[in-house]
Amino acid sequence: MATTSPPAALPVVEPPSDHPSGLAGAISTCCTPLTRAPLSAEEADTLVAVLKAIAVPTRLRLLSMIYARDGGEACVCELTEPLGLTQPTISHHLKVLVDAGLITRDKRGVWAYYRAVPEALAALATVFSPRR
Amino acid sequence: MATTSPPAALPVVEPPSDHPSGLAGAISTCCTPLTRAPLSAEEADTLVAVLKAIAVPTRLRLLSMIYARDGGEACVCELTEPLGLTQPTISHHLKVLVDAGLITRDKRGVWAYYRAVPEALAALATVFSPRR
Repeated sequence: MATTSPPAALPVVEPPSDHPSGLAGAISTCCTPLTRAPLSAEEADTLVAVLKAIAVPTRLRLLSMIYARDGGEACVCELTEPLGLTQPTISHHLKVLVDAGLITRDKRGVWAYYRAVPEALAALATVFSPRR
Repeated sequence: MATTSPPAALPVVEPPSDHPSGLAGAISTCCTPLTRAPLSAEEADTLVAVLKAIAVPTRLRLLSMIYARDGGEACVCELTEPLGLTQPTISHHLKVLVDAGLITRDKRGVWAYYRAVPEALAALATVFSPRR
């Protein structure tokens, strides 16, 4: 897969790197706080897809390792050792998080770098936010 | 499978009705925001247990139907029809949410009433809250 920035024509490559895409993009527009109104079936399905992506301990830990970083970015080379898993395993989990729109991936040189998508996390926080 | 909670010497009855218990009680003390520090394996496991409880469309919808209510309470008799499921099915899903500490159950007369636990939802919102 190409590693450079998005081409001008309609990209078939990676999504642009700093706005919520995929499911997380969908939840940012789909879902009102649970305390405000009952979710429709469609809203619930969208939200469940994101929750399933993160309801795995390794993925939650990866997410926190990236989001807690100053600058919100980490090289895959920094993520494998702390979890004691192989790089293919880590890369698989990271791909699920990318597909869910919770992080983005950018290949630079030999390494892939993963970056937080704060708007995606904020969308989740909003869903669970208390009644005003 | 039995329908009561943990084994133990202590109470075999329902948890007290207005503070976070179970897993949601645990996340309210366990988990710092993902943006603040990497989660430990134990924190991730605790959080995953709650996320798995809600990562099912029917459960998310039930949760929103209860939390969006004025007063944060609904009779099981009001929850079945909107979802088009049988009462045993609804009761099963509600039990999972009770076990996760996200709602409490109170039987009054012939009906069970389910009540929001705002602190539990707030704990989830905190986990996903953006970097300050």
